[in-house]
Amino acid sequence: MTQNSKKLANQQWGGRFAEGPSAIMEQINASIDFDKRMWQQDIRGSLAHSEMLANVGIISEQDKNSIHQGLEQIKKEIQNNEFEFSRALEDIHMNIEARLAERIGEAGKRLHTGRSRNDQVATDFRLWVRDNIDEVIHSVEQLMLTLALRAQEYADVPMPGFTHLQSAQPVTFGHHLLAYVEMLSRDKGRLIDTRKRLNESPLGAAALAGTSFPIDRQMTAKNLGFDHPMRNSLDAVSDRDFALEYLSALSIMAMHLSRMAEEIVIWCSSPFSFIKLSDAYTTGSSIMPQKRNPDAAELVRAKVGRISGALIGLLTVMKGLPLAYAKDMQEDKEQVFAATDTIGLCLAACSGMIADLKANTDNMRRWAGSGFSTATDLADWLVQKLQMPFRTAHHVTGRIVGLAEQKNVTLDQISLADMQTIEPKITQDIFSVLSVEASIASRTSEGGTAPKNVLQAAQYWISILKDHP
Amino acid sequence: MTQNSKKLANQQWGGRFAEGPSAIMEQINASIDFDKRMWQQDIRGSLAHSEMLANVGIISEQDKNSIHQGLEQIKKEIQNNEFEFSRALEDIHMNIEARLAERIGEAGKRLHTGRSRNDQVATDFRLWVRDNIDEVIHSVEQLMLTLALRAQEYADVPMPGFTHLQSAQPVTFGHHLLAYVEMLSRDKGRLIDTRKRLNESPLGAAALAGTSFPIDRQMTAKNLGFDHPMRNSLDAVSDRDFALEYLSALSIMAMHLSRMAEEIVIWCSSPFSFIKLSDAYTTGSSIMPQKRNPDAAELVRAKVGRISGALIGLLTVMKGLPLAYAKDMQEDKEQVFAATDTIGLCLAACSGMIADLKANTDNMRRWAGSGFSTATDLADWLVQKLQMPFRTAHHVTGRIVGLAEQKNVTLDQISLADMQTIEPKITQDIFSVLSVEASIASRTSEGGTAPKNVLQAAQYWISILKDHP
Amino acid sequence: MTQNSKKLANQQWGGRFAEGPSAIMEQINASIDFDKRMWQQDIRGSLAHSEMLANVGIISEQDKNSIHQGLEQIKKEIQNNEFEFSRALEDIHMNIEARLAERIGEAGKRLHTGRSRNDQVATDFRLWVRDNIDEVIHSVEQLMLTLALRAQEYADVPMPGFTHLQSAQPVTFGHHLLAYVEMLSRDKGRLIDTRKRLNESPLGAAALAGTSFPIDRQMTAKNLGFDHPMRNSLDAVSDRDFALEYLSALSIMAMHLSRMAEEIVIWCSSPFSFIKLSDAYTTGSSIMPQKRNPDAAELVRAKVGRISGALIGLLTVMKGLPLAYAKDMQEDKEQVFAATDTIGLCLAACSGMIADLKANTDNMRRWAGSGFSTATDLADWLVQKLQMPFRTAHHVTGRIVGLAEQKNVTLDQISLADMQTIEPKITQDIFSVLSVEASIASRTSEGGTAPKNVLQAAQYWISILKDHP
Amino acid sequence: MTQNSKKLANQQWGGRFAEGPSAIMEQINASIDFDKRMWQQDIRGSLAHSEMLANVGIISEQDKNSIHQGLEQIKKEIQNNEFEFSRALEDIHMNIEARLAERIGEAGKRLHTGRSRNDQVATDFRLWVRDNIDEVIHSVEQLMLTLALRAQEYADVPMPGFTHLQSAQPVTFGHHLLAYVEMLSRDKGRLIDTRKRLNESPLGAAALAGTSFPIDRQMTAKNLGFDHPMRNSLDAVSDRDFALEYLSALSIMAMHLSRMAEEIVIWCSSPFSFIKLSDAYTTGSSIMPQKRNPDAAELVRAKVGRISGALIGLLTVMKGLPLAYAKDMQEDKEQVFAATDTIGLCLAACSGMIADLKANTDNMRRWAGSGFSTATDLADWLVQKLQMPFRTAHHVTGRIVGLAEQKNVTLDQISLADMQTIEPKITQDIFSVLSVEASIASRTSEGGTAPKNVLQAAQYWISILKDHP
Repeated sequence: MTQNSKKLANQQWGGRFAEGPSAIMEQINASIDFDKRMWQQDIRGSLAHSEMLANVGIISEQDKNSIHQGLEQIKKEIQNNEFEFSRALEDIHMNIEARLAERIGEAGKRLHTGRSRNDQVATDFRLWVRDNIDEVIHSVEQLMLTLALRAQEYADVPMPGFTHLQSAQPVTFGHHLLAYVEMLSRDKGRLIDTRKRLNESPLGAAALAGTSFPIDRQMTAKNLGFDHPMRNSLDAVSDRDFALEYLSALSIMAMHLSRMAEEIVIWCSSPFSFIKLSDAYTTGSSIMPQKRNPDAAELVRAKVGRISGALIGLLTVMKGLPLAYAKDMQEDKEQVFAATDTIGLCLAACSGMIADLKANTDNMRRWAGSGFSTATDLADWLVQKLQMPFRTAHHVTGRIVGLAEQKNVTLDQISLADMQTIEPKITQDIFSVLSVEASIASRTSEGGTAPKNVLQAAQYWISILKDHP
Repeated sequence: MTQNSKKLANQQWGGRFAEGPSAIMEQINASIDFDKRMWQQDIRGSLAHSEMLANVGIISEQDKNSIHQGLEQIKKEIQNNEFEFSRALEDIHMNIEARLAERIGEAGKRLHTGRSRNDQVATDFRLWVRDNIDEVIHSVEQLMLTLALRAQEYADVPMPGFTHLQSAQPVTFGHHLLAYVEMLSRDKGRLIDTRKRLNESPLGAAALAGTSFPIDRQMTAKNLGFDHPMRNSLDAVSDRDFALEYLSALSIMAMHLSRMAEEIVIWCSSPFSFIKLSDAYTTGSSIMPQKRNPDAAELVRAKVGRISGALIGLLTVMKGLPLAYAKDMQEDKEQVFAATDTIGLCLAACSGMIADLKANTDNMRRWAGSGFSTATDLADWLVQKLQMPFRTAHHVTGRIVGLAEQKNVTLDQISLADMQTIEPKITQDIFSVLSVEASIASRTSEGGTAPKNVLQAAQYWISILKDHP
Repeated sequence: MTQNSKKLANQQWGGRFAEGPSAIMEQINASIDFDKRMWQQDIRGSLAHSEMLANVGIISEQDKNSIHQGLEQIKKEIQNNEFEFSRALEDIHMNIEARLAERIGEAGKRLHTGRSRNDQVATDFRLWVRDNIDEVIHSVEQLMLTLALRAQEYADVPMPGFTHLQSAQPVTFGHHLLAYVEMLSRDKGRLIDTRKRLNESPLGAAALAGTSFPIDRQMTAKNLGFDHPMRNSLDAVSDRDFALEYLSALSIMAMHLSRMAEEIVIWCSSPFSFIKLSDAYTTGSSIMPQKRNPDAAELVRAKVGRISGALIGLLTVMKGLPLAYAKDMQEDKEQVFAATDTIGLCLAACSGMIADLKANTDNMRRWAGSGFSTATDLADWLVQKLQMPFRTAHHVTGRIVGLAEQKNVTLDQISLADMQTIEPKITQDIFSVLSVEASIASRTSEGGTAPKNVLQAAQYWISILKDHP
Repeated sequence: MTQNSKKLANQQWGGRFAEGPSAIMEQINASIDFDKRMWQQDIRGSLAHSEMLANVGIISEQDKNSIHQGLEQIKKEIQNNEFEFSRALEDIHMNIEARLAERIGEAGKRLHTGRSRNDQVATDFRLWVRDNIDEVIHSVEQLMLTLALRAQEYADVPMPGFTHLQSAQPVTFGHHLLAYVEMLSRDKGRLIDTRKRLNESPLGAAALAGTSFPIDRQMTAKNLGFDHPMRNSLDAVSDRDFALEYLSALSIMAMHLSRMAEEIVIWCSSPFSFIKLSDAYTTGSSIMPQKRNPDAAELVRAKVGRISGALIGLLTVMKGLPLAYAKDMQEDKEQVFAATDTIGLCLAACSGMIADLKANTDNMRRWAGSGFSTATDLADWLVQKLQMPFRTAHHVTGRIVGLAEQKNVTLDQISLADMQTIEPKITQDIFSVLSVEASIASRTSEGGTAPKNVLQAAQYWISILKDHP
């Protein structure tokens, strides 16, 4: 490039990147600003690695002891905010290793034997994700328990069961809350499976090909709580499945929470007024003190965007990457960190909202009976008592509901005589199934909304969950 | 709306929707065009449901027999393309039920007792996904076997091991192929977990609240191969986690295949020329008959877009949906069907490409030695034989490589004397580690690239996989 | 590969791909099943290309005439469903060219001079997207007009203006409907910009490098309605920005429609009962004939998933693709076709729902006054009439609302004396601003909800839009 | 909830949220940690608003002066890092307003008259996006200029033109670089359109309904550089299209950069060795000093994931949101901020890499002639000189290439006699088109790769761009 061209081209290094290429490269390349969150995992990995190096005789017992003491001191420095993280050293691995050499000299330079940053970062990141899966599972269980406790309390409180947000059949509020316990239970299951599948040790894969040092990968794997070493060294440094699977599990979970949040927002709106959130999770307005904006619920509803955006973002990063390690993979951490923080906050907010909310049971009960919501009970009575085929019973019920609508009464207010004009065989017994309470009580099929079922289910979950925290 | 306004507003119903609202509604609402793919699952579900209805006495044995005969006949009609699917009947469930009533009369109208389209579609779709998970697992195993067989063949063929697409250390082609077997093995694990978690029966949840009929959900669950009934009827009809988890698993798998495909494309380019694909998976050009465009690989690389697009699409659909059933959920099927077809095609194409490819082992070998790829071996020798600290050995190696670069020779061509100018303690023994073959053979750590490791790993996978198909 | 291995590996070609590699390759590679939708554009392009070839003397006038006649005949064959599309010929381009050669012989073989499938497909696809942008714009205008007509009708009908789905201040229903006209107007603007930017001709870029034939790209560009030829032949065949920009515009539009659809669903729920949809866009139930499930609205709400899934899918496909043409790009069409069909359906369904809906103005009016929705008016009165600082007025209003809440009355029911206990300077004049009607009428700031503003805005849009269709 | 249940449910508030609900709510609700980036825009908006309030007589000239002085002082405090941001005050708006009241008393409490946080945040965020669009456009132009300058330099340097990463026809390196200038030029166009469409003022929409104060929205719009006020107050506070359109434009741009980055990575790999990056944008290894990992390019390639993840994330947030303002919309900023920082970094890194790279023109030239890359030229000669139909010429060429392949010579090395065995009419003249240089020189069609075209195109762009910075 000619001097003149160079001058033209270089006019860009004003502003943020006035220092030129080095400033750009440092900013795009250095990961220490975010990967320092893995400092504990990095030290844990180095302790295990050096322990093993000494055990198989690659380093001396004395060097190992120096290394361990040095790492313990660095741990304290970081905990006490006395550690100076340096961008010039790029990442958490080099920051800690450089500080170690500074503190203990020669021995510190032996730590990286038979290891590479490629297997080191894979190890650290797996440990971090594993640690955080455990945290998230704990928060999920808390939310499940909170829901189950409220479900027990509201096991027999009627509310409208909606399809298409139209009143369909009465259910109980407890039954509704327990549906979320089921969803969260699957979320937990996905996290457990993810944890199990990630729990293999990449350590010892070295740069990508393994090593000629007589390392003991079983030992480091065991020491770090992994089930076993990964079977292929190329795969060990190229794989980020665990991050993707974790983000998938969080995306589905966040979607569940968005459904709960949407319901909370709708239930809080004046026309519904099914529930009242506590002050803690709403914001008022100095001008309208009665106003309780369900801000926390709205934010929970929105956060699924960030988490599924992180998932698709990382899938895009990994698309079409040749083996083995590529720098592209450094983009894995910020997405995972952000998604972890976000889901933790959402779970806590949901637990808080659910624990504190007050159900407006009168309103729920009133709307539970709206919309001829026991029409199915009427049809079922025709089938059970008159042996009508179901589709025929459907048709007859439709005509009775039409009559009720025309007369502007509810189903249990229509007279027997009126019903008999449509189907003469109907008897007084029909009224035993037309009330909201009767309808709910009759749904005794497994998993149905009958209060005794709901109570049992709530107690089942409480008994499982209460000892967890 | 005034007549005049109406006229203005209605000018739109030209063209595609000339018939007006009914045409629009039919097109947006009817699902029969795609959900007819679930006809087998729908019939299977109805057989199980009616069997149970008879068993608990809700319908007579005779009605059950009529229903079963009718359904078997409908099965044949569909298989023989004699069944007329109707958009007016909206979906596969109503199409089959209406035809049943047409064929067997009264008894047909009893089939839907204690059931709703809400639990019916949830049941059908779970069965469909489960069936197709089994198919996909089979195809994954085939690709794994194909890779393992080729890995066995190429267990000791050197190729450059890349990081950043830069030659880093030599590996074997077999080792590289086996990395994909590991990835696919995790993919299979995810599908197995998804299958296990989906394998609960929603049947009997009815519309959303359960039912007052004395149905036996354990019986239908067992009959349909489910592990047990779902525990909460609201959840049973609201849940599409299984579809999302399945799409997540397929997205990660498709990402793996995109990596393999990218490598194939690069390996086929002239400057690399590592492999030659068979004619079957390339397209030529009438003008350049030597040209082999790796079309199949490029398409596999691209398809991850469609599958992860389907995942994010369905996550978006489910975001913020109030319980229980909402029509939005009808958007689940086309995404799942398309992703299933796509992954099946990609797996088959990859199996075919891998089975047929010819490795250009000379080229691979040549590039395996490029870029001073045994520099790490030199450093390791310094550590192992001279007890140098690793970081110091790194530094010394750097200087030797610099010398080689300057003299324009490879590492095994540099003279001992030259090396000794940098580190006098180096002996003739160093040459035992500087060749590609020596480097590879020395990587005997667990999961390393030493040919004997690779052969063993290949045989391990073959022994596991060969009896599957 | 050994015979034995081959046998093992080939067990896979059962089932769908029993014919082996050729069946797989045909299925993954052939695009005719979907790209035949571009047949009109392909013929249009070939007519323009051959016209130009003759004009600059590359082919004879006679050959050109044969080609034109041949293409016109093929057009009729396709229109009459007499054309046999062949998968072996891969795509629409080869299908038509082969048929042309079949029909007119030698001259047909001259058509492809100075052209390649790479610039041909880019041309066809641009023309297709351009044609469909025009269609979508037309549908958008229809929906805008429908909304504006209904807004005119409901210009002064009060409804609650929500923030956080909490009643905040009264607005008019017409004002609310016009908000969507604004959104759609931006959607239209984005489509117009997309159309303008795509309207460059790739034709003449040939395979990727241009051609040595003395073609006239200005002539073909003009003939096909393009503004000018694209400036760089490599870019011309590598670019799919127009598809991505189109999908972006559709994604934002679909998001708008999902908001409208969500509101329709909520407004249709019993507790709200703000509107009633016509039978045409709801589904009932044979058992609950009063039930009107807003299926069309729910489906519109869901469809944004498919469209934004298509966008992210194509972005993923294009990620990291080296220039120039790669087969990956064949994945562009199905996503664009599906998104186009989907948005067309959604726009039509929304126009239909809006045109037919009946507002339950009593309910809207009632809720418009709930939640002390005129508290801001009270505060503004304090500022305007008593010169209170706004934040102070806020505070005073809060205390008055608190009092009203405590007394369980609305703001216009509280007595002057009561108000004066909090702020003695308040006069009788305050009641002139506390009713819903007064509140609405006072919002005369530009863009505000005062009925006269709304009526004017509705008429503005109607005047612009009514002559379009 | 019973005390006991409460205790159970509350066990969760250990750890991060030990302070209980308030800590959770503060963390999920407060936006000050990120929205403080908009402090300049917030102050600018308040200056314009108060100016207008005084002008129409809503506040006094004196109060306005106090407000302006107060805001200028706050500006300095923030610039000097002396401003204490408070989470309890939630966001940048309340932080500044509270500080203003603290500093200037009563007058400060009048600032918010006729305004709401809803229109305030919409105004601030539009201004922020607009400011940053201008910055991004500047960076895009810099990259375009850099590319054009390098293209001028390499206007006649041959390199292989690839399709499917297979050598297809020779092009020049300058031509290839200019393809990216075209892409970036469209990117710039999209940003300009986005800027134009966003440039409407929401200020004055107040909470959602407009206001009864006699505000002058034209004046504030003009003062803030907006083209005019938005037409509908509900839309003004509900709209985030501008953020979505901006993210769409950045996603497509990031995709372009990912393509450039992928090419850089491939060109840097040993088998290609087309280019050498400068040290500034590569990382070495202490052990392999010759190694230049193209880290910056890999990171640029990856970053498209984050940006398109942000786009899909915000689309998900906005899906199905009822009007008008909802707290969900607070999720807009972090996505937009992150995408802005990311694209800025990517553009700077690309400019740097392109400005500094050295082309290995020998390698490029060598591979440009590989793969019988002038076969098309041969076919075109047959058409032009022998009047063969193109498809026939294709076929003849195929046979000649086959012969060359068999004889293991390039096309310009095959003898005339040999060619004549296939097509007797071929003359010596054919050799004038078979060299790489002849091929390139002949592609003189508009936009073709002939060096004189390329030079002209480079100069065209340089002349347009050089005065911009």
